[in-house]
Amino acid sequence: MSWIDDPEFAADRPFGPQTLPYGVVETADGPAVAVRVGDHALPLRPIADEFTAELAELVSADSLDPLLAAGRSAWSALRARLGELVNATAAPEGAVLLPLAETRTRLAFTVGDYVDFYSSRNHAENVGRIFRPDGDALFPNWSHLPVGYHGRSGTIVVSGTDVVRPHGQRKGDDAPVFGPSVRLDIEAEIGFVCGGPVARRVPTSAAAEHIFGVAVVNDWSARDIQAWEYVPLGPNLGKSFATSIGAWITPLEAFTAARVPVPDPGHPRLPYLVEDADWGLDIHLRVEWNGTVVSRPEFADMAFSCAQQLAHMTVNGATVRPGDLFASGTVSGAEKHQRGSFLELSWGGKEPLKLDDGTERTFLVDGDTVSITATAPGPDGSVIGLSEVVGTIVAAED
Amino acid sequence: MSWIDDPEFAADRPFGPQTLPYGVVETADGPAVAVRVGDHALPLRPIADEFTAELAELVSADSLDPLLAAGRSAWSALRARLGELVNATAAPEGAVLLPLAETRTRLAFTVGDYVDFYSSRNHAENVGRIFRPDGDALFPNWSHLPVGYHGRSGTIVVSGTDVVRPHGQRKGDDAPVFGPSVRLDIEAEIGFVCGGPVARRVPTSAAAEHIFGVAVVNDWSARDIQAWEYVPLGPNLGKSFATSIGAWITPLEAFTAARVPVPDPGHPRLPYLVEDADWGLDIHLRVEWNGTVVSRPEFADMAFSCAQQLAHMTVNGATVRPGDLFASGTVSGAEKHQRGSFLELSWGGKEPLKLDDGTERTFLVDGDTVSITATAPGPDGSVIGLSEVVGTIVAAED
Repeated sequence: MSWIDDPEFAADRPFGPQTLPYGVVETADGPAVAVRVGDHALPLRPIADEFTAELAELVSADSLDPLLAAGRSAWSALRARLGELVNATAAPEGAVLLPLAETRTRLAFTVGDYVDFYSSRNHAENVGRIFRPDGDALFPNWSHLPVGYHGRSGTIVVSGTDVVRPHGQRKGDDAPVFGPSVRLDIEAEIGFVCGGPVARRVPTSAAAEHIFGVAVVNDWSARDIQAWEYVPLGPNLGKSFATSIGAWITPLEAFTAARVPVPDPGHPRLPYLVEDADWGLDIHLRVEWNGTVVSRPEFADMAFSCAQQLAHMTVNGATVRPGDLFASGTVSGAEKHQRGSFLELSWGGKEPLKLDDGTERTFLVDGDTVSITATAPGPDGSVIGLSEVVGTIVAAED
Repeated sequence: MSWIDDPEFAADRPFGPQTLPYGVVETADGPAVAVRVGDHALPLRPIADEFTAELAELVSADSLDPLLAAGRSAWSALRARLGELVNATAAPEGAVLLPLAETRTRLAFTVGDYVDFYSSRNHAENVGRIFRPDGDALFPNWSHLPVGYHGRSGTIVVSGTDVVRPHGQRKGDDAPVFGPSVRLDIEAEIGFVCGGPVARRVPTSAAAEHIFGVAVVNDWSARDIQAWEYVPLGPNLGKSFATSIGAWITPLEAFTAARVPVPDPGHPRLPYLVEDADWGLDIHLRVEWNGTVVSRPEFADMAFSCAQQLAHMTVNGATVRPGDLFASGTVSGAEKHQRGSFLELSWGGKEPLKLDDGTERTFLVDGDTVSITATAPGPDGSVIGLSEVVGTIVAAED
């Protein structure tokens, strides 16, 4: 029996000893790297003596930045030692468990570059049909490369941060109209936090050296602003106001039992996108709108894996640095209840959704709260959790 | 007579006492903030005693980061004091002048977010005609908002850094082809380095509080990669391999005599894009290809000013942080000799340019060197310089 007395710290629960995600919590002693155990945070600085000198320094920091830079061997050694500590019958000397309900979390790392991909075929087809009803749903490049764009790093916020409704231009009859967005939406995504040495041209076979962990991302999107601005250089203001990420980053190593092949594109892959191991992930997402589950997207449907996305992102010689973040793109399945955005769920606002409280929604109303969670299969029938991303919409500023 | 004995340190030369741009140089004592005086660098740490305690700390850093964060009043105070010091007849105690030819420069600041705009009407029309010969050259949004996208911060490099020819996918007959880019290009731009407090919704009237300085930017572009990848989310790999910026950032205050109105768009501006003062800048660019001047773009032709671009970038609530960089977009004029990219100068590769050595060019050949410089009118008939951006193309890696 572990010394950690929390019924959520169990193999059949998302945050049992098989998961052990990292985050940063506020403590009396300042921000501290911590590991999530069930519904508690275990700050690591108070028990730094339990680790080697190298690891002790990494876990005593006030963010995950040094750990991200340290690389795969440090990540594996830390996870192995943490496994021993949380499964022990006696608590390490000085250990403190903080109930999550009473603990403030911080954005766990300094975000370098943020790239958002577009790797769900169903999402790309749905958006294509809604935004360009007279054109082809997919462009010819889509199945050959993971289409993506750079988002704004400076407005990535930790789960729990309110989202202020953005102002912007939208199409008008004669001239554009300016005001608060009237089509505020979400995008349910999976994000990948990078670390290890600065590298260029990372092959798919080296993904594990440069991907530290996995988190849920909500890429809030103002569809009216986006639709007007996005030609020809892509989304900008329609996305840049806020992107939420989970407070806890689940280590890539936790997903060994969740790895699955990516779907066959139906044509040969260029060599740099071929994988020598499966990097698709069998992650199940769940989207709640004011407490009503409105969607259950399946990440295994994605057309490109994280390894392929990282290989593509760096194949031109661009570097990947510790703290860089890339996200999958909205995860949407073939079925309506698997769509990862309200744009798709309401089909461009034409088919309102009914929530459990009897109200109807197309896009987000001030005061609405969206929560996205995810799980994946873990070893020996256990379950791996990805930490919730939650945000509430606040009225636009004057 | 100033104690600085350099014929280039003169009012009719770009880097006289009216300019005083900041950079970071390698010294025996480590990287140091410096000011450019003619063809010399004056490191500021050795003369830190000449400043107030607050300024002394800022100029003793190893990058411009603390200075960028300090804000407008510190920037103005530092520039005023520097003016006194460089115009004095006697050198401050401990002052060392380093010849630029023998001095290594560094990227002067940590780049936060990088946004690249598209605010030259001629450039947008030219690219539209070349990339989409069957469509309208300009999209309807173009004249109403400064179209832009986020670029990759992690691959911004200081002038003088070699540029490795990027690999990538380009359109093929049946399937895409992968290999080194065969249409490697430049974009001559002006960049704006942000500072001051973290801010949201910065009105045009507050531009000077958040724009620290101005630099030449070369947004290297692989046109074949870009043309294949850019729909519908904009440029990514075609740009993300490298963006070069000048080693010396010319303070915004140096441009008081260069401010001009932006061209009338021919329709009313939305209120957040109206300026209460002119923020267009009368900057003259010069593009040299292996020593041949191939273009002289005029920045005064740009359709949106830096104040309008910053207001737009933050109007949705997105923050601007110290170290954020935004660039104007390629500066192209109406005349052929004013075009700021080789795509335009060679009209999509159809009209080769003849260089002074007798060779012809459409896009960049390995070993080619491109240098972009710029000047603007200064006070009392003086000239303000923007530091050269130079880069040489290195063959693609195996």
